[in-house]
Amino acid sequence: MSQALLKIKGIACGAMNAHIKNNDALDLSVISLAKGTKTAGVFTQNVFCAAPVLVAKNHLQQAPLALLINSGNANAGTGAQGLKNTVKTCEILANELSIKTEQVLPFSTGVIGQQLDLSKFEVGIPSVTAQLSDGGLSDVAQGILTTDLVEKTHSATFKVAGKTVSIAGIAKGSGMIRPDMATMLSFIFTDIKATQSQLQTCLYSATNQSFNRITVDGDTSTNDACTLSATGASGVDIVDCDDEFQQALNEVTKSLAHQIIKDGEGATKFVEIRVKGGVSSQDCLEVAYTVAHSPLVKTALFASDANWGRILAAVGRANIKNLSISDIDIDLNSVGLIRAGEPDPTYTEARGSEQMQKTDIVIDISIGSSNLQESVWTTDFSYDYVKINAEYRT
Amino acid sequence: MSQALLKIKGIACGAMNAHIKNNDALDLSVISLAKGTKTAGVFTQNVFCAAPVLVAKNHLQQAPLALLINSGNANAGTGAQGLKNTVKTCEILANELSIKTEQVLPFSTGVIGQQLDLSKFEVGIPSVTAQLSDGGLSDVAQGILTTDLVEKTHSATFKVAGKTVSIAGIAKGSGMIRPDMATMLSFIFTDIKATQSQLQTCLYSATNQSFNRITVDGDTSTNDACTLSATGASGVDIVDCDDEFQQALNEVTKSLAHQIIKDGEGATKFVEIRVKGGVSSQDCLEVAYTVAHSPLVKTALFASDANWGRILAAVGRANIKNLSISDIDIDLNSVGLIRAGEPDPTYTEARGSEQMQKTDIVIDISIGSSNLQESVWTTDFSYDYVKINAEYRT
Repeated sequence: MSQALLKIKGIACGAMNAHIKNNDALDLSVISLAKGTKTAGVFTQNVFCAAPVLVAKNHLQQAPLALLINSGNANAGTGAQGLKNTVKTCEILANELSIKTEQVLPFSTGVIGQQLDLSKFEVGIPSVTAQLSDGGLSDVAQGILTTDLVEKTHSATFKVAGKTVSIAGIAKGSGMIRPDMATMLSFIFTDIKATQSQLQTCLYSATNQSFNRITVDGDTSTNDACTLSATGASGVDIVDCDDEFQQALNEVTKSLAHQIIKDGEGATKFVEIRVKGGVSSQDCLEVAYTVAHSPLVKTALFASDANWGRILAAVGRANIKNLSISDIDIDLNSVGLIRAGEPDPTYTEARGSEQMQKTDIVIDISIGSSNLQESVWTTDFSYDYVKINAEYRT
Repeated sequence: MSQALLKIKGIACGAMNAHIKNNDALDLSVISLAKGTKTAGVFTQNVFCAAPVLVAKNHLQQAPLALLINSGNANAGTGAQGLKNTVKTCEILANELSIKTEQVLPFSTGVIGQQLDLSKFEVGIPSVTAQLSDGGLSDVAQGILTTDLVEKTHSATFKVAGKTVSIAGIAKGSGMIRPDMATMLSFIFTDIKATQSQLQTCLYSATNQSFNRITVDGDTSTNDACTLSATGASGVDIVDCDDEFQQALNEVTKSLAHQIIKDGEGATKFVEIRVKGGVSSQDCLEVAYTVAHSPLVKTALFASDANWGRILAAVGRANIKNLSISDIDIDLNSVGLIRAGEPDPTYTEARGSEQMQKTDIVIDISIGSSNLQESVWTTDFSYDYVKINAEYRT
């Protein structure tokens, strides 16, 4: 699903290897935004949010003109020193771009609990700033990766009265994925003309149906952040096309979210869990996440084993009121497992196994008669998930 | 911790291989209770509770005189037919023992979603009933196992006015472990004299601090059940020693619960997560379970990697109100990680790693100034957890 990124007029980018990671991969990225660009953002709800998240939230109201992103070190759990270091990195970039320190939004991803080595930023930032270009976003898409195997990019366009509006988004993330109001790092750019408040509304709506609906392991990161920057260079005002813009933005965020799941640590399956009929959307989501986070369901998915009793056991322990067995239907890729709480008489092990062999799995769960429906997307649990996370720091 | 079981006067037991499992292990157990025995029980809160759980709950009020337990098939997710089959197995045993069908409590554990093969019970029950003995409880401790590697048993005694009261308990469980008001299967026997209501109160209190505080994978089973049967044969009335009895019962249930965790699927570590200072016990437990269920914490434990950032990230995403970073202290086996939300200045990687190499790990988390404290016990997440659960049905 990754695709060539559209160039967005008004942004210039670059990435380099500043040796923040222990390898030769790109790890320090800068994105410069044209004057007048408006930026909205959503951030992790983790109480232990990282120093760059605290600083980026503060700077968001100061008309940001640059994004500074490092991978390899999350600058999380680093206390007061971590905050000072983040502000210092903003100051270094601000000096290079002749803007104010408060106009830099900082982002970090990587190992938690280690202080940044500022010397790498002092050397790296002038170097990467000297090579910013309008085609550099694909380098940034590489530069923000950690355990990810592939870059995650998506672009969309639509036309309004003969003028083209473009959106280009990038994302990173493959573990510690259960975003809450935001995702792992994702940066989205558009040339539409909009106020920060309009962008913020669109971004909340888009992330709520995409990054906030995916889970690899149920662990919400300390560093989740997603921004949407609009340069206005298309000459199109959002008030003339708010529906089209929201739809295109939703397409970008949903595609990026699904790319994150497909690149989930050790993932061999792409699983949608669709729950309908609850008395509230929250009830639907609670059931969906309970199934999505069940290690027993996830290991059965890895084994392609149609052990549907584990799905049923997970639904049955979901923390919602008034769940009644006789209301429950469960289907696996349209093969009926449970009908009104009873085993589906048409089910056979052969029919179930045939579906479980597939890479793409949809589990449909109906828990009542309302029209509400919510989906979450997740992966299986494999040997490689354990391996990647047991060996991450070694 | 497993130990020789005390014989409890008034109970007779036996177990056999009835070929319900696909191997030669014991899988069908019968426990006969002397007339006048009182029995209390707690059961899974999973909405999809298994047929035997529904039947046992009904029969509990009929002065039960026998327990019937099979392993290898959970008789869960089996609908109306599953219920009929369970009642039929009770009827077979009742005929053998010349008691009423309603006086048999049935229990099942094993694969979910398959109907019982009644012919195995028709052949097996008369055979096992013919060989009941007062020393048979250790055979039953074997007969109730599934993926467990070891039997789980614990006995306790205390004296009242020269008379000895004995308690003997057995349990099974190593996966799908997050009991809710009960545990996996556990059966406890005593010769104290007590009413059902007195026993029920004691059992709730004991399970709440033992079986309800352990978690392997966060998955609450469909079949969890724990019973406490009192024959009265000691001649000691519980009203003369309620504190001593509760304390001895707590010792038995806590030991059995810890044995389940130590035998957790693929477990290489025994981990206590102790949270204090919350505004409610519920808040302490929410933080403890969030850490206990974090796959990233569990894989770091498996790797003996002092990646404490993952503990901090899990605490930070716990779903409680008013968690304030500056109130948080975290210690790993008494090595300080976080003090008032800041990195502990005395921490070194060497000190952390030394503790993480150990098999027994205690993670202390302080989230405020109250005197409340709650512990949960859990395991790490290993390759073998994935292997055992990916290959369970093959």
